[in-house]
Amino acid sequence: MFNEKKKLGKAFKEPVYTFRGFEALPEDMEHLEDRFYGFVFQDSDFSKWIEAVAYSLVNHPDEKLEEIADGAIDIVCAAQLENGYLDTYYIINGMDKSFSNLKDHHELYCFGHLAEGAVAYYQATGKDKLLKAAMRFADYIDSVFGPEKEKSKGYPGHEIAEMALVRLYEATGEERYLELGRFFINERGRQPYYWDCETEGKKQEGERYQYHQAHRPVREQDEAVGHAVRAMYLYSGMADVARLTGDGTLLDSCKRLWNSTVWEKMYITGGVGGTSIGEAFSFPFDLPNDLAYAETCASIGLIFFARRMLEMEADSQYADVMEQALYNTVLSGMALDGKSFFYVNPLEVLPEACHLDERKQHVKPVRQKWFGCACCPPNLARLVSSIPSYAYTETEDSLYMHLHMAGIITKEIDGRTAVFQVQSQFPWSGKVTVTYAGEGPVRMKLAVRIPGWCRNWNVQGSERYCCSEEKGYYVMEGSWQPGDQLDLDFIMEPRFYQADDRVRENIGKIAALKGPVVYCAEEADNGKELHLIRLNPKADIKESKAQIGGKYFPVLNIDGYRKVCSPDAGNLYHEYREDQEKETEVKLIPYYAWANRGENEMMVWMRQGIPK
Amino acid sequence: MFNEKKKLGKAFKEPVYTFRGFEALPEDMEHLEDRFYGFVFQDSDFSKWIEAVAYSLVNHPDEKLEEIADGAIDIVCAAQLENGYLDTYYIINGMDKSFSNLKDHHELYCFGHLAEGAVAYYQATGKDKLLKAAMRFADYIDSVFGPEKEKSKGYPGHEIAEMALVRLYEATGEERYLELGRFFINERGRQPYYWDCETEGKKQEGERYQYHQAHRPVREQDEAVGHAVRAMYLYSGMADVARLTGDGTLLDSCKRLWNSTVWEKMYITGGVGGTSIGEAFSFPFDLPNDLAYAETCASIGLIFFARRMLEMEADSQYADVMEQALYNTVLSGMALDGKSFFYVNPLEVLPEACHLDERKQHVKPVRQKWFGCACCPPNLARLVSSIPSYAYTETEDSLYMHLHMAGIITKEIDGRTAVFQVQSQFPWSGKVTVTYAGEGPVRMKLAVRIPGWCRNWNVQGSERYCCSEEKGYYVMEGSWQPGDQLDLDFIMEPRFYQADDRVRENIGKIAALKGPVVYCAEEADNGKELHLIRLNPKADIKESKAQIGGKYFPVLNIDGYRKVCSPDAGNLYHEYREDQEKETEVKLIPYYAWANRGENEMMVWMRQGIPK
Repeated sequence: MFNEKKKLGKAFKEPVYTFRGFEALPEDMEHLEDRFYGFVFQDSDFSKWIEAVAYSLVNHPDEKLEEIADGAIDIVCAAQLENGYLDTYYIINGMDKSFSNLKDHHELYCFGHLAEGAVAYYQATGKDKLLKAAMRFADYIDSVFGPEKEKSKGYPGHEIAEMALVRLYEATGEERYLELGRFFINERGRQPYYWDCETEGKKQEGERYQYHQAHRPVREQDEAVGHAVRAMYLYSGMADVARLTGDGTLLDSCKRLWNSTVWEKMYITGGVGGTSIGEAFSFPFDLPNDLAYAETCASIGLIFFARRMLEMEADSQYADVMEQALYNTVLSGMALDGKSFFYVNPLEVLPEACHLDERKQHVKPVRQKWFGCACCPPNLARLVSSIPSYAYTETEDSLYMHLHMAGIITKEIDGRTAVFQVQSQFPWSGKVTVTYAGEGPVRMKLAVRIPGWCRNWNVQGSERYCCSEEKGYYVMEGSWQPGDQLDLDFIMEPRFYQADDRVRENIGKIAALKGPVVYCAEEADNGKELHLIRLNPKADIKESKAQIGGKYFPVLNIDGYRKVCSPDAGNLYHEYREDQEKETEVKLIPYYAWANRGENEMMVWMRQGIPK
Repeated sequence: MFNEKKKLGKAFKEPVYTFRGFEALPEDMEHLEDRFYGFVFQDSDFSKWIEAVAYSLVNHPDEKLEEIADGAIDIVCAAQLENGYLDTYYIINGMDKSFSNLKDHHELYCFGHLAEGAVAYYQATGKDKLLKAAMRFADYIDSVFGPEKEKSKGYPGHEIAEMALVRLYEATGEERYLELGRFFINERGRQPYYWDCETEGKKQEGERYQYHQAHRPVREQDEAVGHAVRAMYLYSGMADVARLTGDGTLLDSCKRLWNSTVWEKMYITGGVGGTSIGEAFSFPFDLPNDLAYAETCASIGLIFFARRMLEMEADSQYADVMEQALYNTVLSGMALDGKSFFYVNPLEVLPEACHLDERKQHVKPVRQKWFGCACCPPNLARLVSSIPSYAYTETEDSLYMHLHMAGIITKEIDGRTAVFQVQSQFPWSGKVTVTYAGEGPVRMKLAVRIPGWCRNWNVQGSERYCCSEEKGYYVMEGSWQPGDQLDLDFIMEPRFYQADDRVRENIGKIAALKGPVVYCAEEADNGKELHLIRLNPKADIKESKAQIGGKYFPVLNIDGYRKVCSPDAGNLYHEYREDQEKETEVKLIPYYAWANRGENEMMVWMRQGIPK
């Protein structure tokens, strides 16, 4: 065991502690001084990791890694109780308390991640040991919770079990998992609140369960509220269940919550969660740039939600947001060298404020090596390593290209294998070449998203298909022959954007984007006191390249003005005098590449003004 | 007793509970179920009240009020222990713990307020019962703390005892009180920290005692930090001690801390405390308008500090700040009808945010009837009722007019009584008429402050004196004859101001002031979404009057522009398009009069732009 741990330790660094729980088998329990290590949800670190490993093995087979993973699975499965229960927090501390604090403890959350990881590992390797463990745990949970009179009417405090159960259902065909997921969704927010019964009627004060999206039944919710990651996971589960059960009212609720999220509460970077208090959504249009929470995991959750909406309705608005979240907040969550991480992704940073102002304690001016609550790094790993499943989706007769990433896509249709080869430089250029590379012809539809940021686009080679535009997709239907080639060009120009006027923080400001990529100014390029700079919104945006962290990145060069300061010694306030500004070229880099050159100021939304 | 309490209840509303402590005499203690009511500093409510009563009795003799006050004093004095100790929290809960938690409990704070109230009541009525009680308490404290080896080296967690001891010394001539105040100042921040010894070496984490201004010895402090009220009270005590002991290093420290406060950390309204976390100063130039703390008491403390600096050096910069704090933050602390109060005085308010954003929970969009920790209302009462002592100060041969308030000032000089009658409309007009109304002539200096906001001023009637300008004062020396009249005109024009460029929140913004009075826009006059408005900084500012809360106030009318909104349905972000604005006349009211017409938006610093 020790060797296993050591090996895992190398692969996994700090999270090795996760295995202390799994290794503390019941028979060893009396010997344990310090019984359980870490957060109540510590087990989930393993599950997120195994899920990322699974995706990675698909793309990059690696015997050594697989061996480590199998060893880890052995440890985890050995900890499972006879009845299928598998959360070491309660296995170690006493099963009598199990499922007694659904609101704050994370048993069902740990189960959810376990199921997600198990399915992924099974699908990647064909090995079902962990899958069976997850099913046994699911069966146990199913024996505890459900609509039957004798069963508990509880539901998770931190959602994920809902979508995990759907995934388990889709992998195994066991309908009861879908039913259990649906049960959790249906029970959520019903009165009297289950959690109040759990605490023997002692009610929680304040906003009743908004933090947990359990303030009212999900079909009556129309505003994205509370802890942003929880919200995204719930909405994803709701979309899954709506899709598989054809539940129209649930779908309507998903749409309302989608609209609330992206029309009223999303940063231009695809970040969600305007406040650090509860890592939560703030009220509509309250999107402070410097106080933002915009957790990496929340944007990952938004991508989960978007893909599930796409699976129900191929509408490009969902893919637009997916792309926006991916190339900005999600990638910003990790350093260019992949070795440090952001939990919080603000749109404006003054390092001094992060150090000196407790209100900005959650904002780090540089990425961190690891976190006590390390949700973001493994979440990033599992998203990035499974990105093909977001880039493309399929229906029976259609293949949807959402993100235009380079790769080879296959689709089984009418007993044949359609193969498309995609060449592209997304997100840096809008040129995409799609070549049909199947062995024989197939009749099917290829639907290519027309990005929301794209004003003009053209396609060559689609003449031979029956073409139409449907909800933001260019749909080509016909017989695809080996060698068929499409040359798509989604003209990608850098442009300035404004926020809705109700976003007070951004009044009088603009941000620069090229395609889906948000740009920002960094002190490293533009000096300190970025707030003194104004951009000329009518200026040509020039493009060039610059090295950041050893890699070349596109940069934007924009004519701007920097206020010339003339402080009055000893006077914090002075009579108005017309601003003196000097011309300056402002250099903007892709937002996600910021903070790779040490601690420095950063700003996405900048003051604008047309020169006199 | 019960009747007394009832009577007090009428005069004092909720704070009647304060008397529960005083009435719980030691012999009754066993019978008390709920032994001590309120905060550890609950006793101080009485002291602040009695101080305000004292000032009020000077200006408005009132037998009935004096009778109530005498009754209250009887109750309080009856609670004093034989040894002089008088803090009911420990009298009730056990004297064994007395002075064991100087950092967080407020015995020395309660003593300080008691001494302040006692001196004021003695000076107002000649009655010395409370003064004697305060002296006995001071003597007891002096027996516990001091430089002698056997005595404790502690000092107050919440300052005020320092300046209170000086005041007690000045009222009684007992030098040991001054020495004790000096001792507390000298011990503060010495290493090893006394408070660490108090907790048996268990050290506090984080910023070591910055909150209490005890992070380093006071003579080594150069930045205003921590809890703003505590800071102002400490600096006031330091200034007192520096004045009376001629301690140059202490004076230097006062000057550095003054500069830090007003040059780097003060709102244009004279508010101090940029963060609600610890009700404290933030870092230099961090002055957020909507998240401001700017506690009413902190600005009152700033006025205490300013007057003490003036007593050492008649430099108009101190009086300028005094005036700025008084007419803006301090008066804003109370509704126009005197019946409700602000603790926090922000410079920008969106009521929705106060209700929905926990980060702004400390900001109230309307004044409150009372507070659990009710420091501000009685502090306001004692400041406003003693305002003459801030408006004027004197030295042996000079009378200083700082605030140009109407009134009659007398000064004893060479065995005669000089009497000046001042007529003025300050702060609304800069015209001031000073008439010498003494019975016979006196030879002396009259020094009249030339306000910092004043560009042009003139005086008629000063030809007969020897005149000079000294540190912002117009000094007239000579023989003052009955009937001598001065007509001063400090031209008071409404004007726009800007903040130092390092105040990020205010970049691109202006505020309007006339004289010392800061103006603001309210939704009641200008509609919702004040952030859409820009002021033309070159526009003429027109003046008129408007009724607010039944009183007429000067208002400013300014040409401005309001952005015409054209939201893209379903798009939180859109490509840049040139702003469409429509002309609008913006109406500004005095800042302190805001929130007297119900809950509505308010804004001091507004966006500015010169029209094309």
